[in-house]
Amino acid sequence: MRTIYLDHAGATPVRNEVFSAMSPYLQDVYGNPSSIHHKGREAYDAVTKARTEIAQALEVSPNEIIFTSGGTEANNLALRGVAQNVRLTKSHILVSAIEHKSVLETAHTLSQQGFEVEYIPVDEYGMVHVEDVVTRVRNDTLLISIMYANNEIGTIEPIAEIAEALHEKFGNARPLFHTDACQAPGQLKVSPHELGVDLMTLNSGKIYGPKGVGMLYVREGVCITPQIVGGEQERHLRAGTENVAGIVGFARALTLATEEQATTAVHLSSLRDTFIYSIRMEGFGAILNGHETERLPGNIHFSFPAIEGEALVLLLDSHGICASTGSACNAHDLLPSHVLRATKRAGEHIHGSLRLTLGRSTTEEELEITLKTLIACVERLRALSPLPLKL
Amino acid sequence: MRTIYLDHAGATPVRNEVFSAMSPYLQDVYGNPSSIHHKGREAYDAVTKARTEIAQALEVSPNEIIFTSGGTEANNLALRGVAQNVRLTKSHILVSAIEHKSVLETAHTLSQQGFEVEYIPVDEYGMVHVEDVVTRVRNDTLLISIMYANNEIGTIEPIAEIAEALHEKFGNARPLFHTDACQAPGQLKVSPHELGVDLMTLNSGKIYGPKGVGMLYVREGVCITPQIVGGEQERHLRAGTENVAGIVGFARALTLATEEQATTAVHLSSLRDTFIYSIRMEGFGAILNGHETERLPGNIHFSFPAIEGEALVLLLDSHGICASTGSACNAHDLLPSHVLRATKRAGEHIHGSLRLTLGRSTTEEELEITLKTLIACVERLRALSPLPLKL
Repeated sequence: MRTIYLDHAGATPVRNEVFSAMSPYLQDVYGNPSSIHHKGREAYDAVTKARTEIAQALEVSPNEIIFTSGGTEANNLALRGVAQNVRLTKSHILVSAIEHKSVLETAHTLSQQGFEVEYIPVDEYGMVHVEDVVTRVRNDTLLISIMYANNEIGTIEPIAEIAEALHEKFGNARPLFHTDACQAPGQLKVSPHELGVDLMTLNSGKIYGPKGVGMLYVREGVCITPQIVGGEQERHLRAGTENVAGIVGFARALTLATEEQATTAVHLSSLRDTFIYSIRMEGFGAILNGHETERLPGNIHFSFPAIEGEALVLLLDSHGICASTGSACNAHDLLPSHVLRATKRAGEHIHGSLRLTLGRSTTEEELEITLKTLIACVERLRALSPLPLKL
Repeated sequence: MRTIYLDHAGATPVRNEVFSAMSPYLQDVYGNPSSIHHKGREAYDAVTKARTEIAQALEVSPNEIIFTSGGTEANNLALRGVAQNVRLTKSHILVSAIEHKSVLETAHTLSQQGFEVEYIPVDEYGMVHVEDVVTRVRNDTLLISIMYANNEIGTIEPIAEIAEALHEKFGNARPLFHTDACQAPGQLKVSPHELGVDLMTLNSGKIYGPKGVGMLYVREGVCITPQIVGGEQERHLRAGTENVAGIVGFARALTLATEEQATTAVHLSSLRDTFIYSIRMEGFGAILNGHETERLPGNIHFSFPAIEGEALVLLLDSHGICASTGSACNAHDLLPSHVLRATKRAGEHIHGSLRLTLGRSTTEEELEITLKTLIACVERLRALSPLPLKL
C-alpha cells in the first residue's frame, strides 16, 4: 500500500543531500574532534564548518551555538542552564501554557527546586498576547520561554513583538527570552536577532536532518550553567564527543531549509488552505484548531466532534495515511492534549482531534486522496460512535 | 601518505556492517517512534529490536537499558540520577581518582550541591585496591563509581572483586556501584551481572558504532532521577526523540564486539605484547605506564623522559601515525593527565607520555613501521630537548 506521510511535525525523512553529506562521517572520517592528529583535525574541521554554516543560516556568530542531542535536551539546557546560573538573585520563570513538554516539565522540576513558575495563558487560537507577557514580568523574573510556532496546532506566536515590548518596557533589566523554534525552519524565517530572543532551540530531526542532534542558540554575553559536564566540547558548556555525522547533517539540513524557506512556505500554505477550505465545504462539523492566518504553512489541525482522535489516526493509517492526534510525544499516553486544553476547547473536541502536517514531498494529489479517505473514516467512526453528535 | 591509526580509545571507525544496518534509518525508515501510525511503529520496532539485541549481548533485561547521547551523558546520569534520588538520606560518594572527566566533574558539581565526594586512590599501576574501597564505605555512602578499564593507561580494575567484597561486608546495605565500561566491549567480557554492578555506562563511538549514542544500564529496582525531561521515552527516564539510526548502529556494533571479543582480545594482546617488548629492547628509557598484565588488550602507554608528549604526537602525525598523549578529551588543554598524576609518576614522565591504542584493523606491519618511526621521532625530539635526560 502507498504511504501518504502527513506527520512532518512528528518526524521528517532525512533529505538525500543530508544523507550524502553525513555519509563520509560514518565511514572514512572517524576521528575524535578532540584528538590532535590529522584524523582528529578533519573531524574537528567538519564540526567547525557545520557550526559556521548554521551560524550563517541563522545570522549569528558560530560561538553562539551549542550542539545538543536534540530539541528536548536544548530546551532542558535553556531553562535549567539559565535558572541555575542566576538562582541567587532571581527566581520567577514565565512559560506559555502551550509549550512542548520538554519546556513544561523542565519548568516543573525547577518549581520543585524553589523557582516560581507562572504560565502565560493563550487565547482560543493558541495565541499568546503581548500584554499577557509584559504584565507578568516582575523584578525577579529571570526567564521567559515561549515557542515560535506550536507543534500541535501550528499557531505562530508574536515573538518579535513580545521581545520589542520587553525591551521597551524593561530595557536592560528585562528577563532573558527563550524560544523553542523546532517547528520553524523551512516554514518561517528563523533569525534570533530579528526575533529578539536571547536563547533559541532547534532540532535537526524536524527539518529533514538526522534524529539525535539539535542546538541551543545562546546570545553572546548570556551565561548558562552546563547540564552535561566532563569535557571541553562546546566551550565547556556541553561535554561529550561531538556527534560529527549528525552535526554535519544538521548543518546541511538547516542550510537547505533556510535557502528554500520562502518557496516552501508558499507551496505548503497553498496546499494547506485548499485542504482546509475543502474540509469546511464538506460541512461535517469539522472545527479548525489554531489560528486562521498566523499558522505554520504545513499545519492542518481539526477537531471532529463525536469521534476519538486515536481511532481516526489508526483508521487513516490502515489506508496508508500517516497522521497524528497531536504531538508525537503524547501519542502513546492517550491523555488529552495540554495545548487544546489551554485553548479552552470543549472535551469532545479535544479527543476528536487530527493533525496533518505537510512536508516538502506533499502533493495536491496526496491531499485529495487524504480528503476522500478522511471523510469516509469520519463517517464510519461516527456510525460506530456512542458519543452524541451535535452539529 | 598512508595513515596508521592507533587512537582507537579516542574514536573508532564505524564498521561497514554497522553503517549498513544504520542506513535504512537515515533514509526510508524515518518515523518518530512515538507516533502511532505505521511509519512510527517501524521506527519503534527498530528501537525495540536494538534494545533486545543489546540486552542479549549484556545478558540483562531490555528494560534495564536507557539510551543516551553517549558515554558522557550516561556517566552524568548515573551519578546525578542516583545522587538526586537518594539525597535525603545519604550524601557520600566514592569515585576513583582515575575516572573519566565526565565522572569526576559530575562528582565535583555534586560536591558543590552538598554531597561529600571522596576519591579512591590507585597504586602506581593505576589499580584500585579492594580494601581501599571497602574501608571508605560509610553508612551514608550512596554510590561508588569505578571504571572497568582506564581509557588512558589501560588498567583493568577489579570490579567483580570489589562488588563481591561490598556484598560480603555490607549485604543489602551496600552502596550502589557504577562502572564506566566505555573502553571494554570487544576487548573484555562485559556482563553487569558477572561484574556485580548496579549501573554501567557504554558508548557506541568507542566500539565501532556511530558517535552520539550510548547507554546507561540500570539494574531493575534501582531508581534514578531523570536529567533530561519532557517526554515518555526510555520509560520517562530520558526524554527526547530516540536517535533511531544511532541506536540501531550501536546495537549492531555491540553485538559484533561481543561475538568477536575473545578472538579480538587474543589478537590485540599479542600485538600489544610484541610492541611493548620491542620498545623495551630498544633501551631508550621508555617506561610502561599502567599495569603489566591487567591491561586492556589494545592499550600501549609509555613515558619517554625528556620529551614532550604533544610534540611526539604531532611528529608521529607528520609521518601519518595517529596517536595520543592520553584521553582525547584532554588533548586540547595541554594539562598533565590526572590519571598519571594519580599514579604518582614524576612530572617529566607525565609530559613525555604516549598512548597507542590498537584496533580491529591494526596489523603487525603497521606496528613495525610505528616502532621505527617512534624511535626516530624520540631521538629527534631528544636532540632538540632542553630537558635533562637521565636514563
